[in-house]
Amino acid sequence: MSAPPETSLSPAATTKGRRRPLGLGQATITGGFWAPRQARNGADAIPSGQDQLEKAGNLQNLRLAAGIGEGEAIGPVFADSDVYKWLEAAAWEYGRNPDEELLQRIRDLTAVVAAAQREDGYLDSVVQLRYGDEGRYQQLVWSHEHYCAGHLIQAAVAQVRCTGDRALLDVAIKLADHLGATFGDDKTVDVDGHPVIEMALVELYRETGTPAYLDLAQWFVDARGHGIIERHGHSPAYFSDRVPVRRATTVEGHSVRAVYLAAGATDVALETGDTELLEALKVQFDHMWSTKTYVTGGLGARWDGEAFGDEYELPPDRAYAETCAAIGGIQWAWRMLLATGEASYGDAIERMLYNGFLAGVSLGGSEYFYVNPLQLRGDAYADNGRSPAHGRRGWFDCACCPPNIMRTLASLDGYLATSTDDAVQIHQYAAGTIKSGDVELTVETNYPWDGTVRITATAPTAVELRIPAWAEGATVNGRSVDAGGYARAEGTEIELVLPLTPRVVGADPRIDAVRGCVAIERGPLVYAVEQADNAANVDDLHLLPEAPVVSGTSDLLDGVTVLRAQGRAGTGHQPGWSFRTGAADSTGADVEVVAVPYYAWANREIGAMRVWLPRT
Amino acid sequence: MSAPPETSLSPAATTKGRRRPLGLGQATITGGFWAPRQARNGADAIPSGQDQLEKAGNLQNLRLAAGIGEGEAIGPVFADSDVYKWLEAAAWEYGRNPDEELLQRIRDLTAVVAAAQREDGYLDSVVQLRYGDEGRYQQLVWSHEHYCAGHLIQAAVAQVRCTGDRALLDVAIKLADHLGATFGDDKTVDVDGHPVIEMALVELYRETGTPAYLDLAQWFVDARGHGIIERHGHSPAYFSDRVPVRRATTVEGHSVRAVYLAAGATDVALETGDTELLEALKVQFDHMWSTKTYVTGGLGARWDGEAFGDEYELPPDRAYAETCAAIGGIQWAWRMLLATGEASYGDAIERMLYNGFLAGVSLGGSEYFYVNPLQLRGDAYADNGRSPAHGRRGWFDCACCPPNIMRTLASLDGYLATSTDDAVQIHQYAAGTIKSGDVELTVETNYPWDGTVRITATAPTAVELRIPAWAEGATVNGRSVDAGGYARAEGTEIELVLPLTPRVVGADPRIDAVRGCVAIERGPLVYAVEQADNAANVDDLHLLPEAPVVSGTSDLLDGVTVLRAQGRAGTGHQPGWSFRTGAADSTGADVEVVAVPYYAWANREIGAMRVWLPRT
Repeated sequence: MSAPPETSLSPAATTKGRRRPLGLGQATITGGFWAPRQARNGADAIPSGQDQLEKAGNLQNLRLAAGIGEGEAIGPVFADSDVYKWLEAAAWEYGRNPDEELLQRIRDLTAVVAAAQREDGYLDSVVQLRYGDEGRYQQLVWSHEHYCAGHLIQAAVAQVRCTGDRALLDVAIKLADHLGATFGDDKTVDVDGHPVIEMALVELYRETGTPAYLDLAQWFVDARGHGIIERHGHSPAYFSDRVPVRRATTVEGHSVRAVYLAAGATDVALETGDTELLEALKVQFDHMWSTKTYVTGGLGARWDGEAFGDEYELPPDRAYAETCAAIGGIQWAWRMLLATGEASYGDAIERMLYNGFLAGVSLGGSEYFYVNPLQLRGDAYADNGRSPAHGRRGWFDCACCPPNIMRTLASLDGYLATSTDDAVQIHQYAAGTIKSGDVELTVETNYPWDGTVRITATAPTAVELRIPAWAEGATVNGRSVDAGGYARAEGTEIELVLPLTPRVVGADPRIDAVRGCVAIERGPLVYAVEQADNAANVDDLHLLPEAPVVSGTSDLLDGVTVLRAQGRAGTGHQPGWSFRTGAADSTGADVEVVAVPYYAWANREIGAMRVWLPRT
Repeated sequence: MSAPPETSLSPAATTKGRRRPLGLGQATITGGFWAPRQARNGADAIPSGQDQLEKAGNLQNLRLAAGIGEGEAIGPVFADSDVYKWLEAAAWEYGRNPDEELLQRIRDLTAVVAAAQREDGYLDSVVQLRYGDEGRYQQLVWSHEHYCAGHLIQAAVAQVRCTGDRALLDVAIKLADHLGATFGDDKTVDVDGHPVIEMALVELYRETGTPAYLDLAQWFVDARGHGIIERHGHSPAYFSDRVPVRRATTVEGHSVRAVYLAAGATDVALETGDTELLEALKVQFDHMWSTKTYVTGGLGARWDGEAFGDEYELPPDRAYAETCAAIGGIQWAWRMLLATGEASYGDAIERMLYNGFLAGVSLGGSEYFYVNPLQLRGDAYADNGRSPAHGRRGWFDCACCPPNIMRTLASLDGYLATSTDDAVQIHQYAAGTIKSGDVELTVETNYPWDGTVRITATAPTAVELRIPAWAEGATVNGRSVDAGGYARAEGTEIELVLPLTPRVVGADPRIDAVRGCVAIERGPLVYAVEQADNAANVDDLHLLPEAPVVSGTSDLLDGVTVLRAQGRAGTGHQPGWSFRTGAADSTGADVEVVAVPYYAWANREIGAMRVWLPRT
């Protein structure tokens, strides 16, 4: 039995990759862009999240399973998972900002969870209440029992790392042992329809050093793609079960399930040194990133099945781009970064973080988008609870996204930097501090509004700075460095300058849905044109070719940098049949087009929005 | 009680509109484009359809409900409806081509249906078997009991008109009386989630003259849009229940449900003379046609909810465009044509018929598409049974489309022509005969391959010929006539020439999904570029600007006219991130682009297909 890793204090606390994650408290965000977002997450979102879980019945389910009161389970079969994601968020938040009241909430809720667990280790309040012992694992394709277990385990690891409490870890170990006793080649051969258990078991292995958890994670990864789910009469593609993970060349089906599985498989590859599996995951990530990812880093083109589309199928209006998929994408990219040390994964994390993920939460911090399209028409009618035409909402019937956002923001510090024996790597630029051995680095920056990052070290240190692929003309201490990769610098004073000239980007011609259009970016931010800032109807606004895009400060939306360019208003609705010779001509008046960061859209009156602008 | 209309022998046999439909046998297709399709429908599709209904369990459900054998209901709750659509198709087919064996099949199956009916008139085999008497109408939003009843009534009316048998009509009357005794202001106030009962009850009124059926149809139409479905906790938009029909200004939600309801409401407006309702339906049809209809006449932009999208949301790749929606669209347009006499509805029928509808069935006649996209990528993976990437299929778990196609083809003669007191109107051009009083018109044409239509009358007759809006330069007896409307001609010899020059059409600039692209049409046919005919990869083929499109005969696909133009091959997949400055440039080799009629796609090896071609 191997010993637990020493710095097991962040998500994916591996020691086996090309890069080592830093432990809790070694990288901390103290100001700039992210600190107020983390503060709102801790002060508002997490407490109100607990209220929402109470109101929706998730907490009541666990109390009932614990024998407290009487009644029936309420809500979806995976209701427990949202409680566990909340517990994980609360743990990271406590680690970031210890608060006794929060700790008490965590302990009280943990006690309920522990009491709900069955004697033999099984735990799933909804299944216990609805189907009893006989109902266990009977409908694993849809019952999400492993999914709930995975989130419980992740919460337990965060809890012991951040609070020192072992209470939830004891529950997690009992549950994981129960899974180990139940599933395997000579036991029950089945997999959960919704992955996450794989990542969780590897992390439990990292925390406890018990190899059985890694073995079980590996078994769950390798069990997929051999007809288990088809055997139950379900579509294997939807569940990432059509092809064995190590033979897959792309991602397909339900996007959150697909990236959670891939992240867990990467964890397995990291810990077992399975290079074949890691190479397959590289191919899959590259294919996803180059053919199935939105410019916002959003993942999942289809509402139907909440799924990845075909190659280059990336409609902006009907983008599903679930907030949870961006989070899963970040988790996968982070593990790929740890495994390979390649900067492109840091680039991917940055794009997902500032755009596809961050659009999922309001500026106020406690209203959420489930679905993150790149276009909303002015006449869009909200036909269901997830429709972006509603604007962000305080909670959802299927509430996976809100607590997922909470745990991501509360643990964000863990994604900033890594170390190797001879250097510290900085992947994401945020005002804060990074400790490496006895040396402390102070990072000062107003990124992403300003491209200057100043790093001061208490002793001469080797630092490797990620230079995003978009950052042509970047300099380190005045010296030009290549975009795309890491620039190494040594000393006590390091100044990185990333040029933030607005960029007008087109799309690969195979992306049919945005042909003839451009998007505007500045630094890591993708911009959007919102009706609130534009007099002309955004539904038919065009950008003039070669129009320069100029940036300026503003008081809008907590002080974002706005971008302006010359455009042309459309001629609006033409009555009658839409398909005519010459129908595509557009001859409106010249207008100024104003764009704001995509993440900040829908914080005012909901209206037309578009990331991709036609260019006449 | 009004007397049954005298010529009650075709679908929507109204005498109240601006145009009167012709009765059975008054318009007959005898050759040309449609006759072999009708022949295959009768010889292959209808018999094999009965086999499929046997295999899928639909017929067994009815036998079980009739007390023949023992077992449980199989399949979806609306399984009976497919049987009734088949019975309707078989009845029209018998009317077209009397065949004793078919008549016996109809009679045998009708006897089972009659035996399955409960004493009090209730009939729904699946509900009877699964939920018993207590389960009746308990989940009307989803149970489709009125939907099944509607299809039964339509089949019964077709049966009595075409075979003279009253057996199914007796069942239908008992069932309609049961509905009338159950639903209404002072009875059960509820509506079915899936309309069709409205059209059916009006037709039963036309057949029997019993005003109660018209009253009940009107009640079902007017009951919508007042919160009935929301009361059950469902999305009112999906079910066309958000706004009262007479106040709606567009179509929304599930596209088949929406157009069936609108067609039924048009029937009600026709028979009651409700001009307010008819005006509202005109607005709705116009809005659908100008903002929510594909160039193929396909209806329904979204897989999610099988629904109409927002205005101008018309993605070619993810078009749902269900075959049943095209059929419902034709039914609605036909009723609007009867009510108003406007040629634009005839144009709409033609577009839907030759494209969105006809693509739903293979050239062989008994394989079907449920979903009719305007683009399929070469790498598309079939992730579910309705995916067009499978190619057409012999049947579906939800088998609404195949028998719907059968009944449409078998009753197609009914849509060709109408009469007024002083003229015959010809709306669709097919080789055949049309009787008007004592005069018989013979129509000779090879339309749509050839634009010449020769009409010979046994005595001088006034004929009004629909000149499609696309037919600039049309002539009647050598005289130029305006495109879009009817051209009147009198005599015994009339020659219409519709110019079939290929047309290159663009799309309204608000249709974002096909920006920078063109579609090619010739006559009523929309064309598609299929991989089978093109050496260059269809996924990134471009058309050269101003390239002339030339037509030519071929042996392909039962002898379609093919179109050719100069294009450019794309450069294929560019590895890496897709969103770059200048990313949209395309620099492949010049190639010939070959296009075939859209309806004929997917009759060879399934591969890439696109209706909309980028134009560099």
